[in-house]
Amino acid sequence: MQAFELAPIGFVHSPYQQKFGIPRQPSLAPDVKSTIELIPPYDHRDCTRGLEEFDYIWLQFIFHDNQQEGWAPLVRPPRLGGSKKKGVFATRSPHRPNPIGLSLVQLKEIIYGSNTSLVISGADLLNETPILDIKPYLPFVEAKPNAKTGFVDKAPEKLNVIWSELAQQQLHTLEHSEELFLIAQQSLSQDPRPAFHEDNCKEYGTMIQNINIKFRIIDKTVHILRLDIGD
Amino acid sequence: MQAFELAPIGFVHSPYQQKFGIPRQPSLAPDVKSTIELIPPYDHRDCTRGLEEFDYIWLQFIFHDNQQEGWAPLVRPPRLGGSKKKGVFATRSPHRPNPIGLSLVQLKEIIYGSNTSLVISGADLLNETPILDIKPYLPFVEAKPNAKTGFVDKAPEKLNVIWSELAQQQLHTLEHSEELFLIAQQSLSQDPRPAFHEDNCKEYGTMIQNINIKFRIIDKTVHILRLDIGD
Repeated sequence: MQAFELAPIGFVHSPYQQKFGIPRQPSLAPDVKSTIELIPPYDHRDCTRGLEEFDYIWLQFIFHDNQQEGWAPLVRPPRLGGSKKKGVFATRSPHRPNPIGLSLVQLKEIIYGSNTSLVISGADLLNETPILDIKPYLPFVEAKPNAKTGFVDKAPEKLNVIWSELAQQQLHTLEHSEELFLIAQQSLSQDPRPAFHEDNCKEYGTMIQNINIKFRIIDKTVHILRLDIGD
Repeated sequence: MQAFELAPIGFVHSPYQQKFGIPRQPSLAPDVKSTIELIPPYDHRDCTRGLEEFDYIWLQFIFHDNQQEGWAPLVRPPRLGGSKKKGVFATRSPHRPNPIGLSLVQLKEIIYGSNTSLVISGADLLNETPILDIKPYLPFVEAKPNAKTGFVDKAPEKLNVIWSELAQQQLHTLEHSEELFLIAQQSLSQDPRPAFHEDNCKEYGTMIQNINIKFRIIDKTVHILRLDIGD
């Protein structure tokens, strides 16, 4: 069988250190900034000439943290509460026959230094994600606001996020407290729990930068309990 | 260097037999229907369960007719008349570091026969294009009608298409004349000429199905001269 070998043109630097806690779609956490660092020879500034004229760019990337997990024909989309199965090609599940992802992100800035770095926002990408391609977004062919969308018909309802007194105190001792605050708010309000979960007041943790944010979800509210550093 | 091996999940059957003449973006030729035939094991009907609930789907595919042509950091987008160069990542050029394409197409029907076939319209894909992945379109994150788009700010101006008497007569003797008429109208009105061309009344030909459509372009009008069968 014919196969194609593709190599990364760059890698993502993002605050997301593990899959759990990453928003399930880009733009759901618009204040979270990430960077794509292009590698030689793709970091030559000619390669991105004119890209700054576009607000949004497409990223095609590898779900690299998945490679061993394989795929199944049916998936339980978290949006359906885990109760219904859909075909893998009818979902955006990362567990796909070819583990390639597609994300629309906002391009904030291109930095031409020793490498070329693209500063993006709204990304839902794990740190060190390999990028295969970058393309400009073309609204006259790709914006279809009235497209029918089956079971994924709107952005998910957001949860409230409440910080405990301890977590607030810990936050204020950190250097990048404002950034971490925004990332935690926007990521956790998306309900990161897996499709199957019991409402049993379980304690969860998600690594953002080098901070393990510990929280519980009760009803429609995320309670941030404390911040464990370098956990 | 790390590389990833990806294998097709299916192949396109389309009327486009050569790159020249294919609309440069999907949806510019909305009446042109193509089919994606999924191959085992991806043709199991579970894999596409629920996909029919979506109007539009993303195709990630290989520019297979390109493999030997390589890429360059700078590209002359046809939309700029070939006079200006842009970085490869600021264009949708098929000549890219990783030859992967991205097309938004309308899903018309899923046919479950001996294989699974997806009938799509608006595709800009060459016959036998290898498909790597199919994903549903999510307008609440992917429809950005007001996105700034730099030099590609709207659909290109369409050319008029005029059929010679000979071409009309030839068309009417064909079995699928109505389909061929629509494909020719919609494809050629996009101005298929390369970025560099002199307005020298050159005769062009493009293979649609098994018909070589011969035409000239004068000013803003495509003159279809004749249809050569099985050329």
